[in-house]
Amino acid sequence: MTAAADPPPLSATPRSTVRRGARRARTDRADLYAVLDAGLIGHLGVVVDGAPVVLPTGYGRRGDTLYLHGSTGAGTLRAAAAGSPVAFTVTHVDGVVYARSSFHHSMNYRCAVVHGVARLVTDPGERLTGLAALTEQLAPGSWTGTRHPDRKELAATAVLALDLAEASVKVRTGPPGDDERDLAADSGPAPVWAGVLPVRTVLGEPEPCPLLPGGVPVPPRVRDRVLRGPAVGGSSLSPAG
Amino acid sequence: MTAAADPPPLSATPRSTVRRGARRARTDRADLYAVLDAGLIGHLGVVVDGAPVVLPTGYGRRGDTLYLHGSTGAGTLRAAAAGSPVAFTVTHVDGVVYARSSFHHSMNYRCAVVHGVARLVTDPGERLTGLAALTEQLAPGSWTGTRHPDRKELAATAVLALDLAEASVKVRTGPPGDDERDLAADSGPAPVWAGVLPVRTVLGEPEPCPLLPGGVPVPPRVRDRVLRGPAVGGSSLSPAG
Repeated sequence: MTAAADPPPLSATPRSTVRRGARRARTDRADLYAVLDAGLIGHLGVVVDGAPVVLPTGYGRRGDTLYLHGSTGAGTLRAAAAGSPVAFTVTHVDGVVYARSSFHHSMNYRCAVVHGVARLVTDPGERLTGLAALTEQLAPGSWTGTRHPDRKELAATAVLALDLAEASVKVRTGPPGDDERDLAADSGPAPVWAGVLPVRTVLGEPEPCPLLPGGVPVPPRVRDRVLRGPAVGGSSLSPAG
Repeated sequence: MTAAADPPPLSATPRSTVRRGARRARTDRADLYAVLDAGLIGHLGVVVDGAPVVLPTGYGRRGDTLYLHGSTGAGTLRAAAAGSPVAFTVTHVDGVVYARSSFHHSMNYRCAVVHGVARLVTDPGERLTGLAALTEQLAPGSWTGTRHPDRKELAATAVLALDLAEASVKVRTGPPGDDERDLAADSGPAPVWAGVLPVRTVLGEPEPCPLLPGGVPVPPRVRDRVLRGPAVGGSSLSPAG
């Protein structure tokens, strides 16, 4: 699957330029989409009283807009809605990298970082778009499969939009990057094992709500759900949206 | 397994008091340890030029001290080492909660949030303690099983210590919390499935480094590794350290 039109490359503001481990930076916008679309939660950072607050939260994407939501009473949401700059980071851990030295131990991962100022969504139609995106990211098929929010629920919910203009993606794959001196010990009397222990996020067997009557079947949206894999970059890239 | 001595309860500063969903807050310090000890990465938040930066990073714990590390050239580490307040958040997603309404869709999770000012560790012994904790959290057994950092590697590495004094833990478990009106539809002609789809982090088959000679066995520290499960609270709690 390829995108119908090539999206613009990722921006390169000072803040969204990967400095450490620059060889791991990806500059294709499709990589950003792939990392975001594969996630269940991200970590939202906001500055409150001069100190950072970092909390996990769900999200959804429509094109180059990321939607966040929360209770209208939540302090971090209020700060973000008031125009305080935010950071939003989605990380997938794909493996533990065992090296021949402790220094070169590492992780394989995919990480997307978005910086910007969030916009409080007030248009009723866009609020529903955002909530649909959030619901579908968390539970594909659930937006059409369940009761939509009523007026009271909508009044209690703040929906924020974050433009994906300023974003960076960093990916590490592959074996350890050991020093020559440590590789030389491979042929010695006591070689140290090195390699990657893959880490995967998987789904278990659906557990029905205890209040649900017997005989209500697990719908395909739950039963057949698969999590998107670690494909980012190269021919296995499958961007959505 | 129970802790030899009961650790002090979690603090309750305004910042570390869970406000949203307070019924999900845990106040037992052992819960904090359990959430932290089960993780591979956390998300470090630092304020740089007035805006939050949130990046994933490894960590390790020794008692009530959390150790972080990174390149001495990394901007976030430098800001944190210079006394800028930080937030450090570790989150485990345990399940997608499918409700009868989109509004009550949720996630089961365990989340620990630590606030404070990090201390740049300069004592050579404590630096090694911190690096050992970091290595063992990422790859148990690897600190003793691989070459330790040399002087040059140590010089390139900043080790930070973050006291766990100001921390909060939030846990959601169990089925959806649906409205009565939606539960009433359970006995109607078209009941909506509700329940939990468990999410688990699992380890795959070790993948040897391509440079490793054939016949080097996968050591028990890799082969037999298991990730700590979602046990937090109650009798299944297994705090470490």
